[in-house]
Amino acid sequence: MIIDCHGHYTTEPPEHHAFRKRQVEFAEGKSEAWPLYPEIDDSVLRATIEQNQLRLQRERGSDLTILSPRASGMGHHVGDADINADWSRISNDLIARIVDMYPANFAGVCQLPQSLSGDLKPALAELERCVDLGFVGCNLNPDPSGGFWSAPPIHDPYWYPLFEKMVELQVPAMIHVSSSCSACLHTTGAHYINADTAVFMQLIQGDLFGAFPDLKLIIPHGGGAAPYHWGRYRGLAMMLERPSLGEHLMRNVFFDTCVYHQAGIDTLFRVVGPDNILFGSELLGAVKALDPETGFSFDDTRRYIDALSLDGAGRHAVFEGNARKVYPRLDARLKAQGR
Amino acid sequence: MIIDCHGHYTTEPPEHHAFRKRQVEFAEGKSEAWPLYPEIDDSVLRATIEQNQLRLQRERGSDLTILSPRASGMGHHVGDADINADWSRISNDLIARIVDMYPANFAGVCQLPQSLSGDLKPALAELERCVDLGFVGCNLNPDPSGGFWSAPPIHDPYWYPLFEKMVELQVPAMIHVSSSCSACLHTTGAHYINADTAVFMQLIQGDLFGAFPDLKLIIPHGGGAAPYHWGRYRGLAMMLERPSLGEHLMRNVFFDTCVYHQAGIDTLFRVVGPDNILFGSELLGAVKALDPETGFSFDDTRRYIDALSLDGAGRHAVFEGNARKVYPRLDARLKAQGR
Repeated sequence: MIIDCHGHYTTEPPEHHAFRKRQVEFAEGKSEAWPLYPEIDDSVLRATIEQNQLRLQRERGSDLTILSPRASGMGHHVGDADINADWSRISNDLIARIVDMYPANFAGVCQLPQSLSGDLKPALAELERCVDLGFVGCNLNPDPSGGFWSAPPIHDPYWYPLFEKMVELQVPAMIHVSSSCSACLHTTGAHYINADTAVFMQLIQGDLFGAFPDLKLIIPHGGGAAPYHWGRYRGLAMMLERPSLGEHLMRNVFFDTCVYHQAGIDTLFRVVGPDNILFGSELLGAVKALDPETGFSFDDTRRYIDALSLDGAGRHAVFEGNARKVYPRLDARLKAQGR
Repeated sequence: MIIDCHGHYTTEPPEHHAFRKRQVEFAEGKSEAWPLYPEIDDSVLRATIEQNQLRLQRERGSDLTILSPRASGMGHHVGDADINADWSRISNDLIARIVDMYPANFAGVCQLPQSLSGDLKPALAELERCVDLGFVGCNLNPDPSGGFWSAPPIHDPYWYPLFEKMVELQVPAMIHVSSSCSACLHTTGAHYINADTAVFMQLIQGDLFGAFPDLKLIIPHGGGAAPYHWGRYRGLAMMLERPSLGEHLMRNVFFDTCVYHQAGIDTLFRVVGPDNILFGSELLGAVKALDPETGFSFDDTRRYIDALSLDGAGRHAVFEGNARKVYPRLDARLKAQGR
């Protein structure tokens, strides 16, 4: 099986975007009516999926995508806790409908209703609700302020109630910021990668997995800058008198393969090794373009992995085994499907 | 010749740190007396240099280090424009004294008196003063707020007066932030690398070198995350309808070799190529530790380059030629020394 751990529903129908526009206007005090979500017919959703994610699964040869709402659309900085609760519920319900329509092709990961209020209780409630709906994980935004890092570092006890709930429910989190609120930080070209890097360093500084040995985190986009600067991080861990990266972090931290060229993927595998890497492509589409150097899409990341000389065990780990291990509810779901 | 383009004077005598402490207290309103800088004897400075930077030049086999004040010490977020002007002048004068003591071993790069006021005029004046003292370049902080990105992106006309002055004086800038003011952003493990990445993306978004075709910028720490995510950046450039990275940026942007392991250096050279890479080690010392995997210091970056199969031209470019090209005043200085 080939499991893509990093897919976003970025082909939402126009009605969905129109609703969000009204919701943001309400949040900004530009309209007085609490907006209501429109009816969207199954046939509309089917069309958006079949022409896009399902087509690409077929063309690129993957079997199942772990699907979550558009990351840049989470917008935790917009509005208060109520707005965020409404928006997360709506966004996650859309994922649940798609997963129910195509149970063999998708598994759900939910957006959490974090907000600038800092209250995590709505996130815990929504996570429970989504797990009841069959979701297998969540996306955790380490910086709900969109580039200003208003929340505490990820190892801070502030986050513990969420991690307790995740461990209780046996769901991992992908660390994933939303859109940038800074003109200096391009969303997909700087803010995403920088957040990955910042959180990896926070994990070195803290001892999160001492407190939560069963917690699993996926740092996407190939771990930000971490593998490229692995020597820096190994050295900083020594200077900070922390254990080695392997001992301290790499039983609990996993990177995906959303690195859009062969040299980058080669580095990731050389430095980190297949036990900590999950196949992912970020479809669709942080980078929607054909690479003129290869003639294929930048985000067709399976090609880069196929070009590695992985043995059977390594290949199985990256494409399937690690995902089943990191997402136990996905494994249970697949087993119930006889896969 | 082997020129290290990235050295900081991080072995300052205790009197210097004690002064800065008094200056910060004054800036924070905790003391009323404008602090005066102490006399520091040449012999004191000599000792700090000979036991450290000069010893390491000898041990590691480099000939000249481009030396600037401690980057994390610049602290542009501290105090007003007057404090920053005083602190930059003092810090740069120390570099000038060291360069004058060891003209064959060092060339100076200055700190600029940027501040949260945003006024660039003091930076222009200090740059002129330092060039008169023989400095060959400057360190430009793209984020004087220490992690909150209060200044405009690097391609914004806000910065143009500084770039005009740099081109006029024929000095390049190394893009280098100072210490982080955010608990989420470790200074050397996140803020430095993230700033490099953010500025590279800003350069893709803008057209700075269309306005300043002769401007040269060095992005340190191996270009942040950029080489590892080169496919992402090539793709984003296409999506933003910008020219290719080579055409748009790589006549003006250079990366150093402050990447502290072989796999990272291999990636840098594979992706970027020797014409855009300057040897650098960041001595001393973002990462002061022995790598247990190699038995050598993480920041002994010459070893990683020596292990590459560079031809003579590539090796010369990285160790000497590119530095002479990017820092024309260094080249003139070396020629005047008969080198």
